[in-house]
Amino acid sequence: MYKIVLLRHGESTWNKENRFTGWTDVDLTEQGVEEAIAAGKLLKKEGYSFDVAFTSVLKRANKTLNVVLEELDQLWIPVTHHWRLNERHYGSLQGLNKAETAAKFGDDQVLVWRRSYDVPPPPLEEGDERLNLDDPRYADVAAADFPRTECLKDTVARFVPYWLESIAPVVKSGKKVIIAAHGNSLRALIKYLDNVPDDEIVGVNVPTAQPLVYELDADLKPIKNYYLGDADAIAAAMHAVANQGKAKA
Amino acid sequence: MYKIVLLRHGESTWNKENRFTGWTDVDLTEQGVEEAIAAGKLLKKEGYSFDVAFTSVLKRANKTLNVVLEELDQLWIPVTHHWRLNERHYGSLQGLNKAETAAKFGDDQVLVWRRSYDVPPPPLEEGDERLNLDDPRYADVAAADFPRTECLKDTVARFVPYWLESIAPVVKSGKKVIIAAHGNSLRALIKYLDNVPDDEIVGVNVPTAQPLVYELDADLKPIKNYYLGDADAIAAAMHAVANQGKAKA
Repeated sequence: MYKIVLLRHGESTWNKENRFTGWTDVDLTEQGVEEAIAAGKLLKKEGYSFDVAFTSVLKRANKTLNVVLEELDQLWIPVTHHWRLNERHYGSLQGLNKAETAAKFGDDQVLVWRRSYDVPPPPLEEGDERLNLDDPRYADVAAADFPRTECLKDTVARFVPYWLESIAPVVKSGKKVIIAAHGNSLRALIKYLDNVPDDEIVGVNVPTAQPLVYELDADLKPIKNYYLGDADAIAAAMHAVANQGKAKA
Repeated sequence: MYKIVLLRHGESTWNKENRFTGWTDVDLTEQGVEEAIAAGKLLKKEGYSFDVAFTSVLKRANKTLNVVLEELDQLWIPVTHHWRLNERHYGSLQGLNKAETAAKFGDDQVLVWRRSYDVPPPPLEEGDERLNLDDPRYADVAAADFPRTECLKDTVARFVPYWLESIAPVVKSGKKVIIAAHGNSLRALIKYLDNVPDDEIVGVNVPTAQPLVYELDADLKPIKNYYLGDADAIAAAMHAVANQGKAKA
């Protein structure tokens, strides 16, 4: 039996401002750092340690991971950064306030963009300054593969191959793995692992900086999963995530 | 022509307490973190960025690197941690106060242990709790190879092969490299690169958290080297390092 830990980054500045973030490289808030410290302390208290970590190329996940590893006294373990663990690309919604967007387009349209499985928001157009094709962290991404927008289905399509080719073999080798990523890239993995139907994955909300443990069998099929933290806090955090797209939020 | 940056960690708690540290995994002080932030800001101001980083498995170097990468907005680059970049192992002196040790054994004996090229301090004995053979970060080190003490010659002998096999090819591939390590592991590299005679390397003091640039030719032979920071501050920092082992310091 194997055990992996999934961890969404702590609160970011744009979580706090209720803006669509996607691939925008925003920082953690002070609260986000505190959440990451708490996650690290919780993992330590529960006796967790890791042999290797995987994370995105976005600083909110990288910093969350570093804070957790510092709490665990494991800053020395190998960390692999890859763009395939990035948050879902939010296309031309990136940078817009969620409540304002809902007021403009309606709650229903925003809910479709946020939670439908296969309807992407409008793409970034060529020349949009938010289309950071020249960022060196994406030097390995072919221009044709560079997302201009994504629905969750697209995120699944680019993350699951990385899981299968790069992470799963490490898990099977017996190494203890932590994955520090984002709400939608983790949702993509959860959909794959638990074989969640397309129309149900929209209801799965991953709260910030709450360690989510998956126990896997020899074929890496889930036996069970659970959050390490206090159940009430997790329910409240999930509720907060679910409500972010409402006009009145 | 290639350019690499060498960076000693910021002030550690045992730098501050003037104790022999070696492989003891002590943290940065607040001042050490500030030094690392300043190093990152300086590198950024001077237009530096990196494709890849190498560091030890000791948190004072790891944290210094992470702070610098955060300042550079480059937390996403690949970082390789390896014990061969660790500080010189200080044997049974690890944990002892330098001034007290000097008062007990004499300035001259301590200077020999600190600065002679090939005289190691007394080794850690079997069973000494400071001999952390079971630490998972050293799982790849064969027990027979695990240092019980080191002179600088020993540090050179275990670091230079790693430079040649693992770092130099990356530099030659054109990637921009930063090495975040320790006073004596960097001195080992400097000795090798500049072909410093055994009896002169004792006079080379690497100040904490001051980016040291080496410009290298096609064969990785040094063309020139220089610190990025203010000359007076660097001279003062070097002087402070040189005087740490004095009984009256």
